[in-house]
Amino acid sequence: MARVTIHDIAKKVNTTASTVSKALNDHPSISTATKELIKEAAQNLNYRQNRLASSLRSGRTNIIGIVIPSSEIGFFATVVHGIEKVARNHGYNVLLFQSNILGEYEVEGIETLLHSSVDGIIASIAKDTTTLDHYLEVKKRKVPLVLFDRTKDEIGVPSVVIDDYKGAYMATEHLIEQGYTRIAHISGAQHVKIFNDRLRGYVDALRAHNLTVDDDLIQYGKNSIESGRACMQALLEGAKKPDAVFAVEDFTALGAQQIIKKSGYRIPEEIGLIGFGNESFSPFITPGLSTIDQQAAQMGEEAFKMFLHQVKNPTIATELIPKLVLDPVLIIRESSVRKS
Amino acid sequence: MARVTIHDIAKKVNTTASTVSKALNDHPSISTATKELIKEAAQNLNYRQNRLASSLRSGRTNIIGIVIPSSEIGFFATVVHGIEKVARNHGYNVLLFQSNILGEYEVEGIETLLHSSVDGIIASIAKDTTTLDHYLEVKKRKVPLVLFDRTKDEIGVPSVVIDDYKGAYMATEHLIEQGYTRIAHISGAQHVKIFNDRLRGYVDALRAHNLTVDDDLIQYGKNSIESGRACMQALLEGAKKPDAVFAVEDFTALGAQQIIKKSGYRIPEEIGLIGFGNESFSPFITPGLSTIDQQAAQMGEEAFKMFLHQVKNPTIATELIPKLVLDPVLIIRESSVRKS
Repeated sequence: MARVTIHDIAKKVNTTASTVSKALNDHPSISTATKELIKEAAQNLNYRQNRLASSLRSGRTNIIGIVIPSSEIGFFATVVHGIEKVARNHGYNVLLFQSNILGEYEVEGIETLLHSSVDGIIASIAKDTTTLDHYLEVKKRKVPLVLFDRTKDEIGVPSVVIDDYKGAYMATEHLIEQGYTRIAHISGAQHVKIFNDRLRGYVDALRAHNLTVDDDLIQYGKNSIESGRACMQALLEGAKKPDAVFAVEDFTALGAQQIIKKSGYRIPEEIGLIGFGNESFSPFITPGLSTIDQQAAQMGEEAFKMFLHQVKNPTIATELIPKLVLDPVLIIRESSVRKS
Repeated sequence: MARVTIHDIAKKVNTTASTVSKALNDHPSISTATKELIKEAAQNLNYRQNRLASSLRSGRTNIIGIVIPSSEIGFFATVVHGIEKVARNHGYNVLLFQSNILGEYEVEGIETLLHSSVDGIIASIAKDTTTLDHYLEVKKRKVPLVLFDRTKDEIGVPSVVIDDYKGAYMATEHLIEQGYTRIAHISGAQHVKIFNDRLRGYVDALRAHNLTVDDDLIQYGKNSIESGRACMQALLEGAKKPDAVFAVEDFTALGAQQIIKKSGYRIPEEIGLIGFGNESFSPFITPGLSTIDQQAAQMGEEAFKMFLHQVKNPTIATELIPKLVLDPVLIIRESSVRKS
């Protein structure tokens, strides 16, 4: 079957190819009624725009690039789906680059996307990124850039995050309300802002409820199942065995859970457990893992909207750069609800 | 810090920028000794090649595109990591496009990658793809194409798959060896070859062990937790309650597991369960899910090697198009080992 062209559409609605092209590209010189007529005809004829030709005319590619640490982390996979959903409604295609948490790959990812002439980049910064030059380069080239979750304010671009401090505060307070008193925290690398925010939320919740903050009950792990296992082992072998654990993210919580169970302690009766991130496996492990939901899909949608806003408003005064902070949501499952 | 250029390297090793450029691009006119000297200097100076400039010279972008249904399916995420690992060793960057199982998005994904001038495409076909024109277009443009897992032989390009028939046969035989006799199968859409292969493997294993193939024990689901739940409910309400279930993939198995437990049956004592795919959650649910491992990382590595082979051998006779079939691996966990 020959591909349908704008000439076929023009013939169908008795107008010129040029008018059809303008209508399909929402040119202001074409009336709304004519646009609708032409778009309907295009749909009936099963017309697909030749994006390459279209982009040569407009200078746009209608491709948006995303850089994430890894889509094996459910949170990032869900953010990406959130972006894709809105992006597709706006006629954009999404290309994804995984940094695998390595800063050097992140630099290559940004280069690769710029090379692909994306219309914009939405990124979450890799854990071991040491320089921000590649992000500043994106800004310099005036390619719209939006950061989410793992951001750096000094880059000076719109961003969307959740309130990690508040989420950690909520998680810790929930454990306190369940009657736990020796609440441990397995944290992550402290140069990553969100992990430090969560640590501070944990500390402040304890203090607000007149519980002692005990360094022996704080472990610094590496955000993985293995690290969660090692940190939990250390906590159980420590002088003060905890009666509850708030883990910095769900993979760490999963490792901790394995060691708690293996050591013969009952969850939640003897040791309560809560994670952070609401990973896809978290409802399905036994007992189901209480956690903090990060509104990942909404984060993706908001990030894309910020990109669109930048396309329409390329120059925003520094003091007006938007930073959206989403509220975390406490998800209570079996692992933290003490039967009393 | 100013970026290191080929001029800096030339100065360091006392040669010309042109020689450095040729050496870094493996030009045959430069001796191996000189190449090594220059590459070592480049490394010491922390030189990173300007890929854009390099690609303008070579006509290559060193970008490879991947199209997968969804990285939320752990199998695909692992294949992608397998591809990335080898690709990076060969100086390629990887861009990912998710079709979300929809054929129309897959078409857009292929267009987007071609538009980004990728040097090759590695893809797994979306479940509801109805036309193969977009893949034939890739072939026509002489862009190397490799298919994995969900492939179509009629496209006529190299592919790497696992032996789904054999994996299903192994899973079913394992249940038979554990003493189960009324073994049900929850299958998937039959126009997808791999799901039909798994159904045939199940049927042939039963027959080989003189067990009756009973249509009432076969359900056709939709590869999701919800669908696994619905199919399992139907099996339990049927005339012949199964004493074991082989699910077409692990998400389906997870749904089945939830209903079996909710209905008060013990796994594996009363009902045995095995999945397919070895998803990341499968070791962590209770009881741990027996399954078939698809060698995802190796599949990714082999797919990339097939791409490289095509780059070096652009014209292969149709009868010589390689098709690599990897062996599945039986993973035995608690869900299928009957305590006797």
